[in-house]
Amino acid sequence: MSTKDKTMEKIVSLCKRRGFIYPSSEIYGGLNSCYDYGPLGSELKRSVKDFWWKSMTQTHTDIHGLDSAILMAPRIWEASGHLENFTDPLVDCKNCKSRFRQDHLNGATACPKCQGELTEARQFNLMFKTFMGPLEDAANTVYLRPETAQGIYVNYQNVMTTARAKLPFGIAQIGKAFRNEITPGNFTFRTREFEQMEMQYFVKPGEDDASMDRWKEIRRNWYDKLMINSEKLRFHEHQGNELAHYAKAAYDIEYEFPFGWSELEGVHNRTDFDLSRHQEYSGKNLQYFEESTKEKFIPYIIETSAGCDRSILCILCDAYSEEEERVVLRFAPFIAPVQVAILPLVKKDGLPDIMDNIANKLKKHYRVAKDVSGSIGKRYRRQDEIGTPFCITIDYESKDDNTVTIRHRDSMQQERISIDAIESYIEPALALPID
Amino acid sequence: MSTKDKTMEKIVSLCKRRGFIYPSSEIYGGLNSCYDYGPLGSELKRSVKDFWWKSMTQTHTDIHGLDSAILMAPRIWEASGHLENFTDPLVDCKNCKSRFRQDHLNGATACPKCQGELTEARQFNLMFKTFMGPLEDAANTVYLRPETAQGIYVNYQNVMTTARAKLPFGIAQIGKAFRNEITPGNFTFRTREFEQMEMQYFVKPGEDDASMDRWKEIRRNWYDKLMINSEKLRFHEHQGNELAHYAKAAYDIEYEFPFGWSELEGVHNRTDFDLSRHQEYSGKNLQYFEESTKEKFIPYIIETSAGCDRSILCILCDAYSEEEERVVLRFAPFIAPVQVAILPLVKKDGLPDIMDNIANKLKKHYRVAKDVSGSIGKRYRRQDEIGTPFCITIDYESKDDNTVTIRHRDSMQQERISIDAIESYIEPALALPID
Repeated sequence: MSTKDKTMEKIVSLCKRRGFIYPSSEIYGGLNSCYDYGPLGSELKRSVKDFWWKSMTQTHTDIHGLDSAILMAPRIWEASGHLENFTDPLVDCKNCKSRFRQDHLNGATACPKCQGELTEARQFNLMFKTFMGPLEDAANTVYLRPETAQGIYVNYQNVMTTARAKLPFGIAQIGKAFRNEITPGNFTFRTREFEQMEMQYFVKPGEDDASMDRWKEIRRNWYDKLMINSEKLRFHEHQGNELAHYAKAAYDIEYEFPFGWSELEGVHNRTDFDLSRHQEYSGKNLQYFEESTKEKFIPYIIETSAGCDRSILCILCDAYSEEEERVVLRFAPFIAPVQVAILPLVKKDGLPDIMDNIANKLKKHYRVAKDVSGSIGKRYRRQDEIGTPFCITIDYESKDDNTVTIRHRDSMQQERISIDAIESYIEPALALPID
Repeated sequence: MSTKDKTMEKIVSLCKRRGFIYPSSEIYGGLNSCYDYGPLGSELKRSVKDFWWKSMTQTHTDIHGLDSAILMAPRIWEASGHLENFTDPLVDCKNCKSRFRQDHLNGATACPKCQGELTEARQFNLMFKTFMGPLEDAANTVYLRPETAQGIYVNYQNVMTTARAKLPFGIAQIGKAFRNEITPGNFTFRTREFEQMEMQYFVKPGEDDASMDRWKEIRRNWYDKLMINSEKLRFHEHQGNELAHYAKAAYDIEYEFPFGWSELEGVHNRTDFDLSRHQEYSGKNLQYFEESTKEKFIPYIIETSAGCDRSILCILCDAYSEEEERVVLRFAPFIAPVQVAILPLVKKDGLPDIMDNIANKLKKHYRVAKDVSGSIGKRYRRQDEIGTPFCITIDYESKDDNTVTIRHRDSMQQERISIDAIESYIEPALALPID
């Protein structure tokens, strides 16, 4: 096993052991490629989503939020092209019955597992379908959305009108999407159920290139604020056949995972393709009327589409660090699932009362844990392993002089500070980096 | 049309017009009983979820978060009883083909619409089903979860172990669930896709009654913090046939909507039913071992299960108020989608610059809107109608003496304060009421 495989295995194991991510339905043997976020994982995920949302809607007064339903009118998927084109070529081995994506076989004509003969490829649609209402027939077929973007496009006029928005403006949404992937894998990187964070920015044609440049920069900087290692981030430009038929230009933000460079987010110029299609299929006029020039046109769309689960996996991989005496997750402090751990030296002599008093004050604003068991050294290691940026230790002196020791996760340096000064001490490091 | 029907109609209309809630897929004629939350609705929903989450996990150090997948192992729905029992009795009219829930017909034997003959009742399962993987057969059938609770139950041991929790402790989760309702209705009250906020509290048998009393009180108080009218809230106790077979006691928190008293949340003592069933069906030992007594037992579960969309609808209905000269949404300030609106008296003479400076400072912590068009009176009405608690007006004096007028939504009173004092002035009203 390569070092990189081992690293991934260690991260998966830590995620399970400490409550970041569990295999879904585990007591029933699991469900292939589905995962549940545990106590630490769910807090981490919430923090990242909250940061993304506020970076969009709270920071930019021209970006409006949306939370559209997973179940949508089926005709939307005709308009978007998903019913026709959202397929993978599927082949089966006639001998061992294994199933492969033909485009992953590198031109091989025999089964990679048993060398058996493969079937002809058939196009397999990746949308999950279900039936709304009691009859299981074509008229009642609906789909689980394979992307959140279409919910934004079909609401573009509703949002524009109700928010009294003028071009350029954006619509931001976080939500689940579903793809019946033939070959999910790499832990939570490619799963059948996943969460997206998408902001679609509507601009006048001609202003699309400048907007694309701007959003490439803003989105790239967002990962810096999460303290992701810059050397492991890069842009990948779609070229030639890679460029979708509707896209004028497309860049992916990629991260170097232990399993290789892989996409975190797409920043794509989708032109007027989406709104033109919805205008055609819905029969509704989706043109924008520009007051100043009296022009009518279909806006262009600059899409920023980030994978939420992929962001979390990137954050976990990037934060993971093995040192001589400890494993430490070097999360940006503001997203750490536990931001402050409070550790009384002993379980008696009033030290737990001091712990409770500090916890009650801090927990109004921060995610706080108390840990009373084991040696202090062991407790520090435990908090390092889950990425807690600050540990506050209460000892006998605390009773006398109202001071505690505060320990920094990364440097392991310790300082003695007054209990009354804790909040102002930790606040700058835990504040959301939005501006 | 009754006054109450009119009230509901006005609220639905306001929701659409101002961007709280739209019919889903509207440009395609809508999708029955599916709704999208617009810019204001998505912010309101996020605020309520954030408040619920922090009221659970951040306030109570013995409550741990979870975010489990919507797609789960199908055997879970055998264990839970949903595959067998989660059904409604369905009848069709042989004449006009209308479809009804038999239990809603009050014993009628003819079609309420055309007096046609009705079919025999058949049991219709309310779970949406789909297929995972390329084959549409029984072996690949999975279900969209009809409730989030089972994701908590099957993870009880994982959470307990990784969070090093001891009884009593709770697991909190927010997430989507799906029910193929035959008769959805009352706007967002009963929809096929909806969001739940559930906290399941695990206790030692014998301590369940006291825990039930405690959680009834905590959950009832939560709605007070949202400033819901106390006279429109009540407990409804399940009695006789109403009590589910697995429940020892069950109370619903009900709100008096314009369409009548209806359930917001259930606080139920589910006994050891759920974990016993999962122990039986999974073959895994789900007993708890109590160190101090060396006893082994299956914990009892006190469930608090709130409908997120119902909370939002309750908040909208309760906040809606018609006065002589205005319509106003009297939201609790901390959940208002716009918390501060900044209004320069004119669009020139540097007043918009002062607006931008104030907005840039406030938006790091609050949801801020700028509004520069129309008379000040018209702008106040616009903000009243979306429930903005504070309006800040910038006039010519602001340039000279660095002051602004701050206007309170409910009292419409205005005060002159220094620009530097804005943050400390609004902070108490906008702080999250968690303790």
